[in-house]
Amino acid sequence: MKILIIGGDGYLGWPQAMYLSKKGHTILILDSLMRREFDLKNNFNSLVSIENVKERTRVWKEKTGLEIHYIIGDTRDYPLLSKTIKGFQPEAIVHFGEQRTAPYSMIDREHAVFTMDNNVIGTMNVLYAIKDFCQDCHLVKLGTMGEYGTPNIDIEEGYIEIEHKGRKDKLPYPKQPSSFYHLSKVHDSHNIMFACKIWNIKATDLNQGVVYGHETEETEIDPRLATRFDYDQIYGTVLNRFCVQAAIGYPLTVYGKGGQTRSYINIQDTMRCIELAIENPPHKAEFRVFNQFTEIFSINQLSEIVSHCSQELNLKVEIRHLDNPRVESEKHYYNAVNTNLINLGLKPHYLRNTVLTSLMKEALRNKSRINNKLIDPSVNWRKIKNILPQ
Amino acid sequence: MKILIIGGDGYLGWPQAMYLSKKGHTILILDSLMRREFDLKNNFNSLVSIENVKERTRVWKEKTGLEIHYIIGDTRDYPLLSKTIKGFQPEAIVHFGEQRTAPYSMIDREHAVFTMDNNVIGTMNVLYAIKDFCQDCHLVKLGTMGEYGTPNIDIEEGYIEIEHKGRKDKLPYPKQPSSFYHLSKVHDSHNIMFACKIWNIKATDLNQGVVYGHETEETEIDPRLATRFDYDQIYGTVLNRFCVQAAIGYPLTVYGKGGQTRSYINIQDTMRCIELAIENPPHKAEFRVFNQFTEIFSINQLSEIVSHCSQELNLKVEIRHLDNPRVESEKHYYNAVNTNLINLGLKPHYLRNTVLTSLMKEALRNKSRINNKLIDPSVNWRKIKNILPQ
Repeated sequence: MKILIIGGDGYLGWPQAMYLSKKGHTILILDSLMRREFDLKNNFNSLVSIENVKERTRVWKEKTGLEIHYIIGDTRDYPLLSKTIKGFQPEAIVHFGEQRTAPYSMIDREHAVFTMDNNVIGTMNVLYAIKDFCQDCHLVKLGTMGEYGTPNIDIEEGYIEIEHKGRKDKLPYPKQPSSFYHLSKVHDSHNIMFACKIWNIKATDLNQGVVYGHETEETEIDPRLATRFDYDQIYGTVLNRFCVQAAIGYPLTVYGKGGQTRSYINIQDTMRCIELAIENPPHKAEFRVFNQFTEIFSINQLSEIVSHCSQELNLKVEIRHLDNPRVESEKHYYNAVNTNLINLGLKPHYLRNTVLTSLMKEALRNKSRINNKLIDPSVNWRKIKNILPQ
Repeated sequence: MKILIIGGDGYLGWPQAMYLSKKGHTILILDSLMRREFDLKNNFNSLVSIENVKERTRVWKEKTGLEIHYIIGDTRDYPLLSKTIKGFQPEAIVHFGEQRTAPYSMIDREHAVFTMDNNVIGTMNVLYAIKDFCQDCHLVKLGTMGEYGTPNIDIEEGYIEIEHKGRKDKLPYPKQPSSFYHLSKVHDSHNIMFACKIWNIKATDLNQGVVYGHETEETEIDPRLATRFDYDQIYGTVLNRFCVQAAIGYPLTVYGKGGQTRSYINIQDTMRCIELAIENPPHKAEFRVFNQFTEIFSINQLSEIVSHCSQELNLKVEIRHLDNPRVESEKHYYNAVNTNLINLGLKPHYLRNTVLTSLMKEALRNKSRINNKLIDPSVNWRKIKNILPQ
C-alpha cells in the first residue's frame, strides 16, 4: 500500500515509517522538521543522539534494502502539500504532522497561535488535498485522549448515546480540552468529521494516550535508526521523564497532588494500532474514532512504579511535589473505553519493569547529554509569557 | 460603561453601537472593514445605501450630540488590538468581528482558511489582550445556533446534564456544525471556555439565531444612519432574502425540500439581548452561554408566511425549490431552549406582517439597486472551488 506519513521524522513518525516499510508498504515522509528546529533555537536536545532524515533513510536502505522517500515541507504550504498528494496518490495518510505538546502551546500567545495555525489550518489543507486529488485515500489522524478532559462519566470512543427529555441521539462525545494544544486537536476532530460528511472522505481519528518507550523492533536494527527521546518539560512525556530523573538521581517531579489520572500506551503498541487502522479502513464518509491506549494510571501510581523499579538498579529515588503549573483537577474520576482497537486485534504490551529499566539504562548511558535545567517546568498555564531556560 | 464593539461597522455592530451609545455608554468601535471590502472586490452591495464609518459617526453626533469613536483595525493585528484594549480599558467587549457566513466559508479552501484564521486566531488574540491588559472586562461573544446542528434531542443552552452508565456530569453540549464558518464558532466557544477557566476571564457566548429586519429606533433617526441590508446568496439571511425576492417578483428560492428548521430573532431583540448580557455580567471564570433567539420556523413555513404577507401588497409570489447546495438534513427534529435571556427580561418582538411588509417596501424603494445575479446560490458545499457571479 502507498502510505504518506506526515511528520514521519518525529518521535513516533520515524519508527512508524520503518515499521510500515518493513511490512512491505511504500512509504513517503513529509516533514517540516519543526521539532528539530525547536531544539536548535532553544538549545533543547534528545536524550539519545539521532541522525538526520537523509542519513536515517540511507541507513534503513543499507540495513534492510528498503527505500523510504522523504520531502521536507509543511502542511501549511498548500501548493507543496497538494502536489505531493496528487503525485504520490497515497492509499492512506498517517498524519503525525502537528505541534504535539501542551506546554509548548502555553508558552505565550505566539506559541498558542502557532499551534492553532499549524495544526488546524494544516489539517484543513490535508482534507482539501484529499478531496481535490485523492478522494479514496484513508486519513489516519493522530488525536489525543486529552481532548476528553476528565469528565465525571466514562469516556467513550468519540461518540456517546444521550437520552434527554425522552428522546435519544448518538452525538459527538463532549470535549473539555485543557491547553491550546489539546484545543487544536478538538478543532481538528470537528473539522475532519465535517469533511467526511460533506466530501465522503474516510477518516480514523486516533485519540492516543501518553506514549512511553523508545525502542521498537526497527530502531533496534542499528543505533543510527534510533528515534528521539525527550526528557524535558516541553516534550518529555511523564513516564519517559520519570525514568530519566530516576537514572540521574534527580527527584521525580510530580505536579500538584499527583492524583491526575491519564491513559498510557507503549510505543510498540502505537505502531500496531496505526497498522490496524490502515488494514481496516472505515467506509466512505465515515468518521471513525478509536481510543488508542492500553492502561490507565495516576501520576502518583507512576511515580511509585518508577521508584520501585529503580531499586532493581540500585538507584535511590526521591519524589518531589511541585506547584502544578497546569490548570487541571488533581483528584477526579477517570475511566475510558478502548475496545475498538482490541477488537481489531491489538495485543497490548502492558507496562512492565523491563521497559522502565531499559529506559533508565538508556538514560544512564547518555547521562552526559542530559541538561538538568530542561527538566523542571517553567511554563505556567496562568502566565501570559513564559521564559524557557537555556 | 466603556464598551468596545469589535465589528461595530457591520450589519448588527453598527445599530448596536448606536443603541448602547444612546443608553449613555461610551462606545469605541474596532472594525477591519472586511465586509465592505468583500463588496468592493466582488461587486456585491447592500440593498440600502449605507454611509462609511466616518460619516455615520459624524451624523450620529450631529443628530444626538453623542460621540462614537472608531479605529480601523483587525483582531489578527495583536499590537494594534492590545494597544486599543490597554488604552481604552473597556468594561465590556462585544465581539461581532468575525467572518459571519456559512456560504463565504464554503467558497473554496482560501475562504475556509480565511474564516478559520480570522475568527479563531482573532478571538484568541482578544482573549490574550483581556488577560494581559484588562482582566475584569466582560467578553460578550457572538456565536450561532448553527453550532448545535440538528440533534435528535432538545438543544440546551451551552451545557447538558448527561447520565451515563450510572454516573452524571454537566458537560458542554455536543456540537455538530455544518460549515467551516459554523466550525470556527464552535472552536471559538471551546477556546473561550478554556480561557475563562485558566485566566478567570468572564465571558458570555451568545448563540444567535438567524437575524431578520434592518430597522431599529436608532437607524430610524436619519437615513444616513441605516445599517446594511444583504439579500445575496453569501450574506443574505433567509428571511431578509425572501422579502426582497417577493418585492421584485423573483421566486422565493427554497433549498431542497424546505423542512430545514432553525431559530430566528428580530434585529431589535438582538440589540436588547446584548444589553441584557452586559447589564448582567457572569462571575469571574464563568463561561456563560445563552441561546439568543425568539422563534423557530422551517424554511417552508417562512416561505408561506412571506408569500401570504406579500398578498397585502398585491405582490404575486412563486416558490421555487432548488437543489440544496448545502449538506444538511431537510427533515429533522428541532427544539431549542431559550429561557436564559427571557428570564433576564427580554420581551420578544415576534415575527409579524408589519416587519415583513416594511422589508418588502424597503426592497421596492431600492429596486434599482438589486442585482438579481447575486441571489441564486452558486456556492456548493460539495465543490472545492466555487465561482461567484459578478
